[in-house]
Amino acid sequence: MESNNLKHIISSLQNLIEKNDERSVLALLHDVHHADLAEALDKVNFDQAVYVIKLLDSETTSEILVDLDDDLREKILKKLSVKEIAEEIEELDTDDAADMIAELPEERQERVIAQIEDEDHAKDIVELLSYDEDSAGGLMAKELVKVNENWTVVQCVKEMRKQAEEVTRVHSIYVVDNKDILKGRLSLKDLLVAPTKAHISDVYIPKVDFVNVNDKAEDVAKVMQKYDLEAIPVVDDNKVLLGRITIDDIVDVIKEEAEKDYQMAAGLTEDVEADDSIIQLVKGRLPWLILGLLGSLGAVTIMQNFQNIMSNPQYRALFFFTPLIAAVAGNVGVQSSAIIVQGLANDIIKGSFFKRLVKEISISVLNGIILSMLIIVFGEITHYPFIFTLAISISLICVIIIASLIGTFVPLMLNKRGIDPALATGPFITTSNDIFGILIYFWIAKMILGI
Amino acid sequence: MESNNLKHIISSLQNLIEKNDERSVLALLHDVHHADLAEALDKVNFDQAVYVIKLLDSETTSEILVDLDDDLREKILKKLSVKEIAEEIEELDTDDAADMIAELPEERQERVIAQIEDEDHAKDIVELLSYDEDSAGGLMAKELVKVNENWTVVQCVKEMRKQAEEVTRVHSIYVVDNKDILKGRLSLKDLLVAPTKAHISDVYIPKVDFVNVNDKAEDVAKVMQKYDLEAIPVVDDNKVLLGRITIDDIVDVIKEEAEKDYQMAAGLTEDVEADDSIIQLVKGRLPWLILGLLGSLGAVTIMQNFQNIMSNPQYRALFFFTPLIAAVAGNVGVQSSAIIVQGLANDIIKGSFFKRLVKEISISVLNGIILSMLIIVFGEITHYPFIFTLAISISLICVIIIASLIGTFVPLMLNKRGIDPALATGPFITTSNDIFGILIYFWIAKMILGI
Repeated sequence: MESNNLKHIISSLQNLIEKNDERSVLALLHDVHHADLAEALDKVNFDQAVYVIKLLDSETTSEILVDLDDDLREKILKKLSVKEIAEEIEELDTDDAADMIAELPEERQERVIAQIEDEDHAKDIVELLSYDEDSAGGLMAKELVKVNENWTVVQCVKEMRKQAEEVTRVHSIYVVDNKDILKGRLSLKDLLVAPTKAHISDVYIPKVDFVNVNDKAEDVAKVMQKYDLEAIPVVDDNKVLLGRITIDDIVDVIKEEAEKDYQMAAGLTEDVEADDSIIQLVKGRLPWLILGLLGSLGAVTIMQNFQNIMSNPQYRALFFFTPLIAAVAGNVGVQSSAIIVQGLANDIIKGSFFKRLVKEISISVLNGIILSMLIIVFGEITHYPFIFTLAISISLICVIIIASLIGTFVPLMLNKRGIDPALATGPFITTSNDIFGILIYFWIAKMILGI
Repeated sequence: MESNNLKHIISSLQNLIEKNDERSVLALLHDVHHADLAEALDKVNFDQAVYVIKLLDSETTSEILVDLDDDLREKILKKLSVKEIAEEIEELDTDDAADMIAELPEERQERVIAQIEDEDHAKDIVELLSYDEDSAGGLMAKELVKVNENWTVVQCVKEMRKQAEEVTRVHSIYVVDNKDILKGRLSLKDLLVAPTKAHISDVYIPKVDFVNVNDKAEDVAKVMQKYDLEAIPVVDDNKVLLGRITIDDIVDVIKEEAEKDYQMAAGLTEDVEADDSIIQLVKGRLPWLILGLLGSLGAVTIMQNFQNIMSNPQYRALFFFTPLIAAVAGNVGVQSSAIIVQGLANDIIKGSFFKRLVKEISISVLNGIILSMLIIVFGEITHYPFIFTLAISISLICVIIIASLIGTFVPLMLNKRGIDPALATGPFITTSNDIFGILIYFWIAKMILGI
């Protein structure tokens, strides 16, 4: 919907709510897509949002709640009774239902589940709640269309029509045997083309990709992307069909994964957003700032150890270059680590340790030489002795090499040990590179200048 | 496919190629998914990859080429004749075909197109090549299933079966009038359930989301995500149906968008990857390092202006804290800008300028006070005079406020002017914050200490 259109709806809505004109509100919102309604509720004030949710039928509001911003949803659910929440849940697919229940306080969860009238739905939700949030089980929905391999095409179409009513989008029809073990799949297209008297076992495609219910969400995303799948069946260890995952859920996983890496590189704890409260934002930012500060205090201590250089009028200008050294070391480290983190995420880190070492050193030397030439030019312009800027330049090249090696190999090492390599980007890498950078800088410069 | 399994195939493949045993190679690779074949070719040496591409039929190799790493595909296409490339193109959907042709040198493009036997296919590809790469037109495929509103359901099923043969996955059937203007859609499910004698005009869903062929890829991604669509029709200004975009292409857009923001934050020009050559990597990294260096040289100049502080034994330790000031200013700036860039990407930047200003200053003061207390503790331990660490602390709080305001408002301003706000993250923001930070630091510290 055009954003002007939506703005118009929002202002009309606010007017009508003030007049408490329920009928006109219903007329206004009738036919508006639930995603647009969610956007509208995000923009009106909280009481108005609750008014709309209480007014509309649960078929619409359940979809709105799914689309709402997490924080607003949490606040609204607090305003709804256990019975009202159960009615919303009743309307949702099992995966969305389980996600919404998981957000409730634990004692409320049980009371809501007890209020769900459809027992099968409740059972499915309880099953889904038992899986890890970041696993295939945590992503899948129980809704799917499955047929028995022994059925005929006619039987199958009949059954399918019945099942399809409950399934929003049919990607594939899954074929199982009498024990519910996944045998293959069938597309709607295949079914349209098959002779009506044929048995499913004659027409189904036995080659079917699937994931185990305990597989990591990240790995499911990789499989679905690699094979360009729009849905994938989920099975247990015995290959019994449990559910299916659709690509729209995977889009969220991919986005969150990329955003998480970016946030870590920027020194933010996960899930901090611009519209969070001040306290939340401080909590999300302060830990990394403290880490950075402690590192910098380490650098202060190092400089204290070199303080007698300050008494030397000829060379005390070395201290003017410490932020430069720290900045270059930080930038190089962040670059190297970002390349590795993205490479690991896309599975393109190949070749031996030694090859990568040689490559990083070559890049660093090239970059270092070019940057050094700029420093030497700067030194000539500002009349520093040549030996002085030469000493800085040589130290800088060494600092770049060390910084890029730390940036490259720390994330690789973390990854090997099963730790998220993105941890080694951002403040962590800039801080450690600051310390090493300044230490190496003074040490080499002193040596060259013979101080 | 399990990675062990793939490793086994790769080593067998290498063996068989060495023996030049074409038949066994074909037997080995028969039934392997094209995505796995692409992964395998990425891991064997270049001559072996070309051997396999030349050996397999173009139906398989065209899909492999699409899945291959960009650089390897470019190298392999150089080894293929114009005729061979045209054969590959013939097998591909129009969107993949156009993308592949677009990668060829211009004069080769024309010769390949001239060799395509299916004239309609060639015409479609030429049309797609005319659209901007980052627009809806650049993403869409011409393959779709469309039916006329005046047809009956029986006619429609018949036509559809014919069309569906050419369309890999049928998401929706699009309904058009006699002038090819998009009227609505129909799902396969609806078609299965509809009475056979009904007219399409009686059963189709007139509510259909669509995008204009000139819409930006980013906006198409937002629409498809918001409304949870798996495919969306593309129309021209007269609403004539031109093509459709599927969710798998959008997954790539979302991923690239997120990766691009991350790369800019890390100070990398777009599309640098771990397996690029040394020269490419230097080219991707050096511009940002030079920018950072120039900024730091600015900071050096600022410190030169404060150099008489060095003659003051009591306060010259101020210089030990310059990397700390620069680091905190940089970290704060990157945090603020990352929150804004992600907020803009997710459309959650709301509220007035003034509100955001107050919020950022509050966060900065809170963070600043806590960091200052740590500095004062450090100062007590290392026996600096209290007034000295107090001066540093107060300057630090001011630096944090300025850095967070720059980090917040520069990307907001860029975004308002239609420039990518991600530009204002990473080296750009850290560099400008370094300069301002150090200037403010010395200026305020001097004032407080009365030097």
